[in-house]
Amino acid sequence: MRNIKVAIWGFGAMGSGMAKALLNKKGIEIVGVCDLHPDRVDREMHEVLGVNRGDRAPVYINGNIDEVLKEKSCDVCLCATDSFVKKAFPRLKLVLEKKINVISTAEEMAYPKAQSPEEALELDRIAKENGVSILGTGINPGLMMDLLVLTLTGAMTDLTHIKSERINSLSPFGHAVMEEQGVGLSKEDFIEQDKAGTLAGHVGFEESVNMMTDAVGWKLDGPLKTSMAPIVTDVPRETQYIKVDAGYVAGCSMLGDGYVEGEKKVEMVHPQQIEPQLGGVETGDYITLAGTPNISMAITPEIDGGIGTIAMCINMIPQIINSRPGLKTMIDLPVPRCIVGDYRDMIEVELN
Amino acid sequence: MRNIKVAIWGFGAMGSGMAKALLNKKGIEIVGVCDLHPDRVDREMHEVLGVNRGDRAPVYINGNIDEVLKEKSCDVCLCATDSFVKKAFPRLKLVLEKKINVISTAEEMAYPKAQSPEEALELDRIAKENGVSILGTGINPGLMMDLLVLTLTGAMTDLTHIKSERINSLSPFGHAVMEEQGVGLSKEDFIEQDKAGTLAGHVGFEESVNMMTDAVGWKLDGPLKTSMAPIVTDVPRETQYIKVDAGYVAGCSMLGDGYVEGEKKVEMVHPQQIEPQLGGVETGDYITLAGTPNISMAITPEIDGGIGTIAMCINMIPQIINSRPGLKTMIDLPVPRCIVGDYRDMIEVELN
Repeated sequence: MRNIKVAIWGFGAMGSGMAKALLNKKGIEIVGVCDLHPDRVDREMHEVLGVNRGDRAPVYINGNIDEVLKEKSCDVCLCATDSFVKKAFPRLKLVLEKKINVISTAEEMAYPKAQSPEEALELDRIAKENGVSILGTGINPGLMMDLLVLTLTGAMTDLTHIKSERINSLSPFGHAVMEEQGVGLSKEDFIEQDKAGTLAGHVGFEESVNMMTDAVGWKLDGPLKTSMAPIVTDVPRETQYIKVDAGYVAGCSMLGDGYVEGEKKVEMVHPQQIEPQLGGVETGDYITLAGTPNISMAITPEIDGGIGTIAMCINMIPQIINSRPGLKTMIDLPVPRCIVGDYRDMIEVELN
Repeated sequence: MRNIKVAIWGFGAMGSGMAKALLNKKGIEIVGVCDLHPDRVDREMHEVLGVNRGDRAPVYINGNIDEVLKEKSCDVCLCATDSFVKKAFPRLKLVLEKKINVISTAEEMAYPKAQSPEEALELDRIAKENGVSILGTGINPGLMMDLLVLTLTGAMTDLTHIKSERINSLSPFGHAVMEEQGVGLSKEDFIEQDKAGTLAGHVGFEESVNMMTDAVGWKLDGPLKTSMAPIVTDVPRETQYIKVDAGYVAGCSMLGDGYVEGEKKVEMVHPQQIEPQLGGVETGDYITLAGTPNISMAITPEIDGGIGTIAMCINMIPQIINSRPGLKTMIDLPVPRCIVGDYRDMIEVELN
């Protein structure tokens, strides 16, 4: 069997991280990269990554997606360009129409029907029409606060309440995330921006919760009740991207509650901050399930969000190639797994 | 859509537990039970369960499987009769040839190709020929020491070592399990029976480990290196089924190591005993993964083995109905989840 061929659209932290990880894998190769950033466009991929190219063919980063992707020119395109379905939609459509499978890092793509049901139907239709499939995944949404929860409920004969908690560090993330989360603001500015609706905070609660409630068969009363609170630091904190003085915002604590028939059935708790240890906070992923039996799970420290998202995307490549055509989510496909062997051994379909 | 129809073959602790759990579910009904035990045969199922039948039709437990199952007379048969593939094989074949999907509790059926590759191929062939599918599952093998491990590796870009630990209580289990595990023996008798190969201990290490190594792409050097040690109690311990004096065996500690190219890549640790708290032992499920990143997970106390197996079997019913024909394992199908809504909402295929 020939190697699996992958293209990457968006060569920021996630896209370039996927490339680096894929270079260590067997039976799979990167055949194209699309990125417009002036620091990267027209440069050779291995050189940008600071990796020895060895005897691999050079891959030039191209700003024009129509030059990177031709019809069926690769098996999967990893799209790491957006967070929101409506913004990602035209790009995803373009790839699907070239008869190429898609894995998207867009948080909302983890369960697009939660907030963009029309686009979800349309993506499903386009994918089927072109005989390919599309999946949104990542560490969260995609695993820690949803798929992993569901997997554990598999051991329960009854389920009455889900609490899903992720207490993690924002230190690895750059300026864009700092802005989204309000890191560096004064408490007053944070509250004002939250009121004005200009702080994004974590994107993914609606996706995680709708994925879970659909999977177990609960019908949500409506959108989640969410809130965002500033995490104000008592001590100065600093990362390679930002410096926050004592008394200022080091992170953002998001809560989201899902109600079913008036009862709070799902609780999402997600405080994120830079250098949490300076606030005396131990990071971790925690799942608490009530039912028969009760289940209490802890992963400490938390699974790194950057590596985790990169891993989920590259590890799901075989599943999306093997899948029947259409829009898929993590609850439709076999579980992710870290592929350390040859990627080709995981493929169950004919590659064209 | 009509209700999902289920038959149960084997009405011991597992089979009757599944029946009880299913009676609380929507969109699914039990249409037949096969069991030969003189305490149960020819009796009405609800009465045997001690459950109010309400307006449900009576279901008489029948010792003749050919009277319980006719061609396509139900959607799934839950087979809770055996632990070993070779012993279960003729029964599973019989059900498949009646064009009925199968979920088996047989531990070895969780990954039958590990120890019975010929029977696995044959079951796959028979299932496909009859347009149905067959799955082996349970709490372990099936979830705690294998599928859950794999799910967590999904967040890793590299994996170098797996340690999977399950420290659990045998107190809920009856005489058969006490005998298999050597509970109540003297230390000397335990060691003698172990040497003679007459102690079963835990069944499932080969299945769990082969499932994991196949999924990630490691090729095992050969069978696992396993060992069994008696857990001798310092104090008397007692359950509703057995009484063990101080100085006697309260449980069995199984270890299993999987080697890849001479290196120990997978470590299975599974001490099981009655009343572990009397030995100062805290039960739990622990997964420790080395790679990028390292991951450390703890579930305390352990997920109950009896409820867990019952749950896994009834929760996988939609997946096995929706599946393409053939022999399936937990790594081929979407993740299990506790179904609290209507079972019919989970079905994606036409029921005949």
